[in-house]
Amino acid sequence: MNAEIISVGDELQRGEITNTNSAFLAKKLNSLGIIVKSQVTVGDDPDVIISSVHEGKRQADLIFVCGGLGPTADDVTLSAVAKALDMPLRTDISTWQHLLTIFVQRQIDVQPENKRQAQYVGKLIPNLRGLALGSWVRLGKQRVIILPGPPSEFQAMVEQEVIPMIIKEFNIQKTIKTRALHFLGRPESNLMNDLTPVMKAYPNVMITSYVKPTNIELRLTSFANKQADINAEFDLVTKMILEKENEYYLGMGNDFSLASKVVSLLKQQKLKITGAESLTGGLFQSTICSVPGASEIFDGGFIIYAASAKVKLLGINPTLIEHNGVVSRATAEAMAEYSRERLDADIGLGFTGVAGPDSLEGNPAGTVWLGLARKGKKPISKRLRLAGYLGRQEIRLLSVQYGLQMVLRELESNRTIVR
Amino acid sequence: MNAEIISVGDELQRGEITNTNSAFLAKKLNSLGIIVKSQVTVGDDPDVIISSVHEGKRQADLIFVCGGLGPTADDVTLSAVAKALDMPLRTDISTWQHLLTIFVQRQIDVQPENKRQAQYVGKLIPNLRGLALGSWVRLGKQRVIILPGPPSEFQAMVEQEVIPMIIKEFNIQKTIKTRALHFLGRPESNLMNDLTPVMKAYPNVMITSYVKPTNIELRLTSFANKQADINAEFDLVTKMILEKENEYYLGMGNDFSLASKVVSLLKQQKLKITGAESLTGGLFQSTICSVPGASEIFDGGFIIYAASAKVKLLGINPTLIEHNGVVSRATAEAMAEYSRERLDADIGLGFTGVAGPDSLEGNPAGTVWLGLARKGKKPISKRLRLAGYLGRQEIRLLSVQYGLQMVLRELESNRTIVR
Repeated sequence: MNAEIISVGDELQRGEITNTNSAFLAKKLNSLGIIVKSQVTVGDDPDVIISSVHEGKRQADLIFVCGGLGPTADDVTLSAVAKALDMPLRTDISTWQHLLTIFVQRQIDVQPENKRQAQYVGKLIPNLRGLALGSWVRLGKQRVIILPGPPSEFQAMVEQEVIPMIIKEFNIQKTIKTRALHFLGRPESNLMNDLTPVMKAYPNVMITSYVKPTNIELRLTSFANKQADINAEFDLVTKMILEKENEYYLGMGNDFSLASKVVSLLKQQKLKITGAESLTGGLFQSTICSVPGASEIFDGGFIIYAASAKVKLLGINPTLIEHNGVVSRATAEAMAEYSRERLDADIGLGFTGVAGPDSLEGNPAGTVWLGLARKGKKPISKRLRLAGYLGRQEIRLLSVQYGLQMVLRELESNRTIVR
Repeated sequence: MNAEIISVGDELQRGEITNTNSAFLAKKLNSLGIIVKSQVTVGDDPDVIISSVHEGKRQADLIFVCGGLGPTADDVTLSAVAKALDMPLRTDISTWQHLLTIFVQRQIDVQPENKRQAQYVGKLIPNLRGLALGSWVRLGKQRVIILPGPPSEFQAMVEQEVIPMIIKEFNIQKTIKTRALHFLGRPESNLMNDLTPVMKAYPNVMITSYVKPTNIELRLTSFANKQADINAEFDLVTKMILEKENEYYLGMGNDFSLASKVVSLLKQQKLKITGAESLTGGLFQSTICSVPGASEIFDGGFIIYAASAKVKLLGINPTLIEHNGVVSRATAEAMAEYSRERLDADIGLGFTGVAGPDSLEGNPAGTVWLGLARKGKKPISKRLRLAGYLGRQEIRLLSVQYGLQMVLRELESNRTIVR
């Protein structure tokens, strides 16, 4: 089964607002196995709306027309669709009375246009968050659905009315289930290459990759019966993927946040963290603090931009920096260890590197040293060589993510020892 | 003149990501008077892409095909468009050599698919932010333009390459000119109410408001000849607006950044800044460091999350905190002054408050005290009562912006004294 989504509105057409409704609806339909063949955006023009509906009827089982249902002159969607389908406009008496009551209460004059907000075609879809009604029409095996544009109204109507109606009308039994896995530090093409045997072993699970600013997401997708428990199969696929890619793995979930995972592990293990940040300028610690309840595991820390501040605030020996350079393993490890000691924390992170655009000490932008100090252990470190085409902010953001990944590995290794 | 935008991608089709590129491009085209007749989203399916391009060629002067230019098997856009236009795929040798160099540097195996990233049709559009090339094709009076999907790459290429190319190819004379003015601390409805006389005085200049996460933007818009100097009229309008709203004014420009303005003023005045941050957890200083060249005016600073760290790192008298509370004028000013002294900076900022979701010391989320210490002056402070419906991140982000605004006012008053 497939669908077409027609979004109507001059503001959409001119790009003044971004169309979030269309993606929201596509995602919901996709989870029922309904493929959205195309999403089309047009202006508030009756002729274009009419021809789009005709085009939709030629191609799709479900035709959605969204937006342009308000009371003003440029809201022409409903009458255009009625014309395209050759159906009469109906007026819902109780909605009209409700509108009149509101207008009297708010001392607004009733305009003839206001009656549009009580009109519909075919069958009515109630709107609990706004004034414009939705409509749906049964045309043989096809359905045409008309919805208002404001996202809060639109989304509530899709979830509460439209999706249940579609499941019922088309007797849908199968749904799409997904699982998201997150990785950092592995080029997308290598990752996908390694997955060829996994895809062969589990042909029912589709695996797609998506490059995000902070990591790479693998999405497992399976189309199964509404009642089926797909998690067992997803677990097997996950296990097979992690046999090869565990080194780069961060965690799973649609709303996965590496910072939240790290903060939660620190809480579980009753450890405190701190940091001394040069190129990231506080972004690592700010990311830790963005997680509610971070105060349990974080007391404070240092931002150390100039070499002089490394000496002044942390007491690092200036000859160590002179001898090794600002961007070096030794400086990163010293920043980590000294900050940890100063705050008596369990873990300290040190960030030093070149955010760009200029190079530093002969190191190109994207060269970063991360140091991790753990109470009672020798500090460890890692060098990043982030791609030269990345901008200053991307380099800083990725450095923070790699720092969080180092902490994650440290905390996981700890768990293994405890077992 | 009109355009059609075809966005390609299974993730878009399934609604997993929202299409921001299409609105961005429509807005840019609209500013040239080019009407986007329709925006279409399709999956990574060569046949559908081919028929969409044919459909676009029947209807539009400009046909954009966006997304699906990566190295993986599902990236089929370029070959599909080449087929639709019956044109050969070309390989850009210098891009291919550059790719090989990067792969060797990063010790990544080269896959045959990677060669796709060096391919194009017609003429090449360079991509300074990523690896996939863009292409454009002249077909009589029509132009077909192919661009990569990642928004940072897409947007840079549209602004720097595609829009100038369209202006040149179609000899466009009339354009929409805009000026953005930025404000902080004024409710949008009050701001717009005050502007009624301005709009009456200058009916040719449209004024619209837009609430952004960090400030309110007023946008002045005028449709005029390319050569016409609209700046004189924009200046008069700006002057009339600032007569009423100067207190809340931050600055102007489409790419305006308050942090950049503050850093640039600090450089001009040869002043150094630092900070001690509680609820913002390093976000203020990280925002300062996000500006290239920040090292001239920032040596380092403190993140002070727990009260114990305020004592340990800054040496604030614990009785001062006990007596006044963590969220207080006295604590904010002490944090500002002590951090300034410790780093011998000219200006120190102190941030203390409640990011939420929980309240603290009886203060609801959104209560924030900002302190500003200036060498040789008495510290000043400001209390924010940010709206309760804002989330933790919004409260932290807005606190940083208000802190930057305090610094801006301090630096501006300084300039007046110097004169």
